[in-house]
Parts: sequence; C-alpha cells; structure tokens
Amino acid sequence: MQQRIKDILHQGQVGDRVTVKGWVRTKRELKECTFVNVNDGSTLAGLQVVIPNTVAAATPAIKDLTTGAAAEFSGELVRSPGKNQTIELHAQQIHLWGGADPETYPLQKKRHSFEFLRTIGHLRPRTNTLGAVMRVRNACATAIHQFFQERGFLWVHTPIITASDCEGAGELFTVTTLDFTSEGNIDFSQDFFGRRAYLTVSGQLEAEIMATAFTNVYTFGPTFRAENSNTSRHLAEFWMVEPEMAFCDLMGDMELAETFLQFVFRYVLDHCPEDMAFFQERIDHSVMATAEQMASQPFARLSYTEAIQVLEKSGRAFEFPVAWGLDLQSEHERYLAEEYCQRPVIVYDYPAAIKAFYMRLNEDGKTVAAMDVLAPKIGEIIGGSQREERFDVLQERILTQGLDPAPYWWYLDLRRYGSVPHAGFGLGFERLVQFMTGMDNIRDVIPFPRTPGNAEF
Amino acid sequence: MQQRIKDILHQGQVGDRVTVKGWVRTKRELKECTFVNVNDGSTLAGLQVVIPNTVAAATPAIKDLTTGAAAEFSGELVRSPGKNQTIELHAQQIHLWGGADPETYPLQKKRHSFEFLRTIGHLRPRTNTLGAVMRVRNACATAIHQFFQERGFLWVHTPIITASDCEGAGELFTVTTLDFTSEGNIDFSQDFFGRRAYLTVSGQLEAEIMATAFTNVYTFGPTFRAENSNTSRHLAEFWMVEPEMAFCDLMGDMELAETFLQFVFRYVLDHCPEDMAFFQERIDHSVMATAEQMASQPFARLSYTEAIQVLEKSGRAFEFPVAWGLDLQSEHERYLAEEYCQRPVIVYDYPAAIKAFYMRLNEDGKTVAAMDVLAPKIGEIIGGSQREERFDVLQERILTQGLDPAPYWWYLDLRRYGSVPHAGFGLGFERLVQFMTGMDNIRDVIPFPRTPGNAEF
Repeated sequence: MQQRIKDILHQGQVGDRVTVKGWVRTKRELKECTFVNVNDGSTLAGLQVVIPNTVAAATPAIKDLTTGAAAEFSGELVRSPGKNQTIELHAQQIHLWGGADPETYPLQKKRHSFEFLRTIGHLRPRTNTLGAVMRVRNACATAIHQFFQERGFLWVHTPIITASDCEGAGELFTVTTLDFTSEGNIDFSQDFFGRRAYLTVSGQLEAEIMATAFTNVYTFGPTFRAENSNTSRHLAEFWMVEPEMAFCDLMGDMELAETFLQFVFRYVLDHCPEDMAFFQERIDHSVMATAEQMASQPFARLSYTEAIQVLEKSGRAFEFPVAWGLDLQSEHERYLAEEYCQRPVIVYDYPAAIKAFYMRLNEDGKTVAAMDVLAPKIGEIIGGSQREERFDVLQERILTQGLDPAPYWWYLDLRRYGSVPHAGFGLGFERLVQFMTGMDNIRDVIPFPRTPGNAEF
Repeated sequence: MQQRIKDILHQGQVGDRVTVKGWVRTKRELKECTFVNVNDGSTLAGLQVVIPNTVAAATPAIKDLTTGAAAEFSGELVRSPGKNQTIELHAQQIHLWGGADPETYPLQKKRHSFEFLRTIGHLRPRTNTLGAVMRVRNACATAIHQFFQERGFLWVHTPIITASDCEGAGELFTVTTLDFTSEGNIDFSQDFFGRRAYLTVSGQLEAEIMATAFTNVYTFGPTFRAENSNTSRHLAEFWMVEPEMAFCDLMGDMELAETFLQFVFRYVLDHCPEDMAFFQERIDHSVMATAEQMASQPFARLSYTEAIQVLEKSGRAFEFPVAWGLDLQSEHERYLAEEYCQRPVIVYDYPAAIKAFYMRLNEDGKTVAAMDVLAPKIGEIIGGSQREERFDVLQERILTQGLDPAPYWWYLDLRRYGSVPHAGFGLGFERLVQFMTGMDNIRDVIPFPRTPGNAEF
C-alpha cells in the first residue's frame, strides 16, 4: 500500500524518498516552481508538493493538476521554508490519474454552504469539514467497540427487520415485497415474512435476550424513525449504541454510562487532535473545552424529584411549565447541566407515567429506575433504565399502558425463566458525533443522511 | 462489575474469594453436598459450584436452583477433584434471582434440534452451541474492525435505505410509510422519501464515494435480499463487510483479501480456543484443520481461463457444463479448491458477460478484473473486483447491460472528477461465521434470522 500523508507528516524525515497518491486541493504556479497541495483523506492537512520547472516542463499533464484532480507524486522530502509545515515533497515524477474540469467541478476552492454540499453528497466527503467529521466519526465508533470489547461485552447484531412495534410508536417504516399496484386491502399474510414487518426503532428488547445469556452485550447498528421531522437534530436512519447488562441495577447503569462517555471523549481527543482543532477554530470555539470536560470531570447526579425542586427554585421564567410529573424540556435540561451543575448531570428516577413500560418500577410505586445523561449545550445524550424483571409487575405495566401483551410473549418469558435484574442505555451515535464536533446540523455528521424527501446517493 | 467465569477459570487461584452470577445449567444432589454448574456466557465452560449440606440447609431457595435459574454464589475457590476442571467454588452464600419452572422451561438438559431451537430464539443463546457461535461471531467482528483500523481504513456507514436499485436486482424490499389500505395505484412521490425506496443490497457504490475521499474505507453493516430462498445458505437480512481502496488494482485487491482472511482466522483461533474445540468435537471434525489452513497457507491463484482448462482436463463428470463463458458452479469451485489446489484459491479475470457492469474491462476486451476467493468445502467466500474508472467505458457498460444511466449520475461523476483506479470486495459475514464454525445452517449463526415467513423475536 502507498504511504499515507498522515504518516509522512508525522514521521517523515528529510531525505526520505516517498510516493504519495491523492487529490489536488490547490495549485499555485510561481516563477521557479509550482506548489500543489495534495490530500489523501488520512488527515486534515495536505502535503505540500513542490514541482520544479524542469520537472513541470517534462510533464505535460501538469496543466491538468487542478483542484479535484487525482495524481501521484514521487520524490524526496525536504525541509519546508513555509510556516504551515515542516516538510514538503520535492517531486521528481508525477502521474495524473484523473483530472477534474475546472469549468464544471463543483468543489472549487471557496466556502460552500452545508446546504449546497448536501446536494453533492458524492463529493462533499472531499471537503475539509466533512473529512474531519468522518475521521472523528470513525474514531468514535472505534472507541465504542474498544470500550465494550475490553470489558468483555459481546457485540450482538439485533434484527433490522422486525414484526414487533415495540414501544407502541406509530412512526415506523413498513418493509414489504407486496405488489402495491393491486387494488383493495393489502393482505400482509401474503407478504415476505407472512405478517406486516417494520424497520426497527431499537434493538433493546432483543439485546435483553442476549444479556440473559451472555451477561454483558451491546448493539451498534442502524435504527429508524419515520417521523416527519425536518429539524437539525432528526434523521430517519441513524446508528444507535445500546449496551445491556444482566445482574446490573440503575446505579451500575449510570456508572457505565459515565465511564463510557469519558472514554469516548478522551479517545477522540487523543486520536484526532488536528480534526478537533479544526472544529474548535472553524465550527464551534467551545468544542475542545466541552470534550475535555466530558472526558475528565465526574458527572453530577440529581433525582428527578430534586431536579424539579432545583428548577422551581431557579427563579427562571421557563417557556414550558415545571411540575412534578411533567417531562423535562430541553430548556430545563440545559439549565440543569449548564447553569446549576455546570457539567454533565445524570437525572434519575423519573415518574412512571412519562416513561416506557419496560422500566423498573421503584419501591415508591410512582417512579421508575430510568436515567438520562444531560450534557451542557445539547441536553439529553443518553437515556437508559433498569428493566422491570418481575413478571407480574411487567405484565401489569404492559396492560396499564394499553398495550397488547400477546406480541410480548417472549419478552415476558425472559422474566419467567432465569429472570435477573438488568439495565442498559441507548446512545444516538450521530448525536454524539454532533456534540463532539459542534456541527449544527445532524445531516452533516452522517455520510448519506435520510430525511423526509431525501434518499439520494 | 461481577467477576466473569471466564476470568475465574483462567486466572482464579485456590483461596480466592469470588462471587459469580449466572444461570444454572445442571444440578446434582449427592449425600454430602450439591453440585451446580453455573454459566454466565463469558465462556463455554461453566464453573462448578459445590454447596455443602450445611449451606444448603440454611438456603431454602436451593430447591429452585434448577436448570435455567439465575443465581449468585459467593465463596472460596478450591482445588477440584473432578477431571473436567482444576478449580471449583465452595459456596458459602447463595442468592436465587429468578427460577425456571422445570415443568415448562423448554431448555432442559438434553439434545434439542436446531430446528426446535429456532422456535425459541429468545432462549437458544443460552445453549452451548449458540453460545459458542455468538462468541466466535463477536471475535470475527472484532478481528474485522481491528484488521482495517490497524491499516488506516475508515469504517463508513453506507445507507440502509436507498432509492437506487443498483445492480438491477429485482430482489428488493420496499420501504414505505404509505397507507396500503387505499385503493388504486400507489403514488410513490407521496411516500416518505418522495420516491420509491428500498433496503440496500450492497454498500459498494457509496463506499466508492468514500474511497475517493479517504483512500481506504470499509463498510460493515446489514444488507438485504428479498429472495424467496429457503436454503441453509440464504438469509433475507445479513451483515456484509466491503472494503474499498483507491489507487488499488485487482492484484492489490487479491492481496488484501488473502491477508484479511488469514488475519480473521488466526484471530479466532487465538481468541476462541474453547469454542473452536467445541465445534471440532460436536459439529464438524474438520473445522480446526480448515481454520489453521486458512490462517497460515498462501492461497493459490488461477485465472478464470486457466480454471476452465483445469476443469476440462479433470476428467470429472460435472453436473453443470464447463465452457469458457459460463459461470462456475459450486461443484466446479469446490473441485478447484479441494482437489486441484487443495487449499483456498483465488480465481480472477472472469468473462465480462457474466459479471456486473462496474467491474473493470481488461485489455482483452472480453474479461473483467473480477476475483472470487474459493474455499474448500464452502466455495465462494469473497467476491471482488477492480472497478471501472474510465468514464466512457463505464457509461458504455451501463448501456450494454440495459441499465438506465440516469440514476447513476453521481456514480459516473466519480469518474468525471479525480477518477482513480480502485478496487474492493465483499464478504458475507454470516457465511464467514458458518465456515468458521462448521454450522450446517446459516440461520444458526445469526441471533435472529430473517427468512421467508420468519421475523419473530
């Protein structure tokens, strides 16, 4: 394999003979030589290539080394007199692989709006910002696997296609092979799976199956919401991380969530310093401080009941009402994290009535062992709970919430046979990357966003 | 977190005080004590727990420590007189978490058919075989990430929902939010994405986008086939690994595929010795030899043209005809790998007419730079190619194959702007796990198989 520009910039020595292959970002023609900045995606910075006029004269293709062109340069590393790099490449041989007509190539060197870049999703990964995002995204993903694997968690692949509408959410995509053009009512018993099937909204219930066999597991895969939300925080298709631990209560769940987030932020700070510096400078001047805080400061903890008291005493005029029993709104979450605690805070023990049926009912009979991790600026980043492991209580909760217990037969079985206290949480992966990078719109932290009206590329 | 049985069995010392939590596999009551075998999923073997009668007498719950029950045992590690283990746990404290009624718990200690186990997908991960499969599956997945990350490849998440029917395959699932009960023709412009959308069959085309920005990338995610195949080798939903490398030709592609498979097999042999020994003993007596061969022997290489000559000269009476221009059938692939080469073999340069439009046309004008890795016993395990990077040739190939070029506008653009030689391959993840473990049916190497008529759990 060829030498990566990242390795050359970090480890290259003056005098090394190297070959680099990549895409031209800029070209400047001076009197004695031509400067070309080449990027191969391995790192934010490009390598400066100096082409002496003698070499240029022998290389007719040099005129086509325009922005976006793919080329290969061989030569010797020399000390750079420039202030932006310590070494540069003196090219002796040049090969143009593929040009990029300056008249039509859409990514000329200038600022492009993120809106415009979304219309050229096949080219935008070649920009500085999307490049940095995708490297940070990869680092986050790697950190997640490393964190869980080091702790003996199994990565389990829960199904994408599911016949259960598990949280009673109406916002599901239907998956079908039926012929739509036929008239009349659709008979789903004739469909591929013999019943109506959907795209999953969460792998949690299946992860619980796996946790009651392997103790500690996690999912990391795509999930879906057919929500008609055109906001900067919603995607129809996004990746989710869901650890699930047997023999674990809410306290253990909160500890894992805190350790987990600290690990991921530290990993990215350690592995992507150039990309993070780029976000700090160009996107959001607070990302480094936020990441450093996430990585190193213990999170605060407040029960929901305490949180309500704090909000009531705050003297703030919130837009949404504050009262025990009402869900926390984004403005409340941000007040708690940013102003009251001035750091990430875990709020736990929420009223049962506003939470899902599977969360464990506390002794008080009115709250459940749920927890949310609230981060400054972003609000909820993780939501989790201890699961109801008592058969009778779970069955009662299903009925209370107006759900049909029949499709839950296997979920109830987990409480019938070898039931254990268990807990887990969910992290929206793109929300994490958005938080990490400071990017405004979640559509710009996933390679090919799916939103209402958008499924191109 | 509690101590894992895997760690206790590997590192526990006589005299250590430990607490284990898990599920009872077997219980034997003798005169002076009771033996309980406990498993927590961290490893194949359970820990033998000895409960003296004095402790048993003080623990009424002991009668409920039946197969499948969840319990917690604290005590001291002692040398085991048994021949199956070197240490065992002398329990001093026992806590029963959840029982499992022996009258109804389906997983009593006896052999169950894999067919039966599929009907209890929520409990089968608790069996020895499925447990071993899922640990090997996790090890394969971890090895895959490690292999690519160490080499600087970015993990890219290509979309699951796609509007392009990329290989012209008809076997697609439709994804929709339309109301099916309405009569008349369906107007997909009113659907969620404003057009008809499908579940992806491959992330390759989008991976090519990413490779032309980051040089080396890989996908690892779910893909789908709405094929009505009720075989032991087909799933409607399966995971696929697809690396894509810019500045790479077919030779580099073959080298990567070989190094990759060797790495994954070595990793699993090193990390799952007990599980692999189990498959060797109980499932297929050749898995260890096969894995060792995959991990250590260089693969053979034959051009398709040579392969046809070999088959023609073999003197074998094959069921399917052998002639230049016809695709290789499973019997041909197995003859080449098992008998002629007696090791994995890469066959390359296939006739253009039997391969996909995006594969690079060779200089001879009649073959393409495609390659398949054929393994003994299993046949094709990897399929890959160098991609056609020449705009005109690609456009011509699209038309020749009767495809509409319009939806490929962005794919063609990759050849218009900064085009480079590039190559990649695809590996069906479940086929790999099946090959590794020797399991007969692919439905038994994925936690929750999706096949025609099956989407339970």
